[in-house]
Amino acid sequence: MKNEIEPYRLLGVDPGTNILGFAIIEVRGKKLHLLELGVVQLQQFKEQELKLKRIFERIQVIIDIYKPTEMAIEAPFYGKNPQSMLKLGRAQGVAMAAAITKGLEITEYSPKKIKQSVTGNGNAAKEQVAAMLKQTFSIDLSEHYLDATDALAAAVCHYYQAKAFPGGGKKYNGWDAFVKGNPDRVKK
Amino acid sequence: MKNEIEPYRLLGVDPGTNILGFAIIEVRGKKLHLLELGVVQLQQFKEQELKLKRIFERIQVIIDIYKPTEMAIEAPFYGKNPQSMLKLGRAQGVAMAAAITKGLEITEYSPKKIKQSVTGNGNAAKEQVAAMLKQTFSIDLSEHYLDATDALAAAVCHYYQAKAFPGGGKKYNGWDAFVKGNPDRVKK
Repeated sequence: MKNEIEPYRLLGVDPGTNILGFAIIEVRGKKLHLLELGVVQLQQFKEQELKLKRIFERIQVIIDIYKPTEMAIEAPFYGKNPQSMLKLGRAQGVAMAAAITKGLEITEYSPKKIKQSVTGNGNAAKEQVAAMLKQTFSIDLSEHYLDATDALAAAVCHYYQAKAFPGGGKKYNGWDAFVKGNPDRVKK
Repeated sequence: MKNEIEPYRLLGVDPGTNILGFAIIEVRGKKLHLLELGVVQLQQFKEQELKLKRIFERIQVIIDIYKPTEMAIEAPFYGKNPQSMLKLGRAQGVAMAAAITKGLEITEYSPKKIKQSVTGNGNAAKEQVAAMLKQTFSIDLSEHYLDATDALAAAVCHYYQAKAFPGGGKKYNGWDAFVKGNPDRVKK
């Protein structure tokens, strides 16, 4: 049931409270192309509200420019500091809402799942992930922020996952997509 | 520097991961009127993404119906469980993003600040807060969810705060409002 309209584009994001990494990849046949890779600096904002505003605006602009149909988000679920987790949750929530309003399908992946999907090893070192991505896109990631690399890895992970699971490559709009495309997660 | 256009409306929200409380109040002169008070049930959604979607949609619909210009949000900053705080942060972030897209000014208040503002005592019991609100709006809150009462208290707190601080009653749109209306918070 292959019904992808190609080329199509994926947005990968790694939202944090100080830096947000993002990547846009385009899928053409079996080939992946990197269109943009970058980070949004948030350190200059002392007020968290301003950080959230910047995240929301930048994600929307990136979506407006590249028109991706899906977003993959790196979402660590565990942490030790409740205060940090609240802030991280807000950053994630705002990034997700920015994508909702643009009708994107959203899928979240744990860092372990991303490593596993990209390198075949859930405990792979950052260098291994970067090496695999370098091979896929012929780009030297050492010149980029780690957060951008993580965002790219999330997008690539989503591409592999969508191909591997029946219906995973199907395109829907918005949140219905999540339910239809991830029946296993809904039952969880 | 009184430049309020009356009547104007305030949205109070108390976002949680299982129930979201909300209240719409209208300010006419020195009188506050309660227009709507309720909760959005989120327990039926097992998937957190669906909870977030519902929060986003309902907040936007409430804003579309009543056209409030400001939102006050009850935002606990502390908690013991990092996992719960991440989820709470997401709910808060999505609620805030829903208001951003509608151009509302957003101000967050801690539960203690809300109690202090409504009753004069930051350690007031829930019953004292409900009693003060009952007096203000001539409504029996015992028939309502606690989350709805908390949302109403947040809106009332915001009204008092806006009156008490110079420029606090001034209306701006969106996030610029936050900066202009809260210079003390930006420096923090």
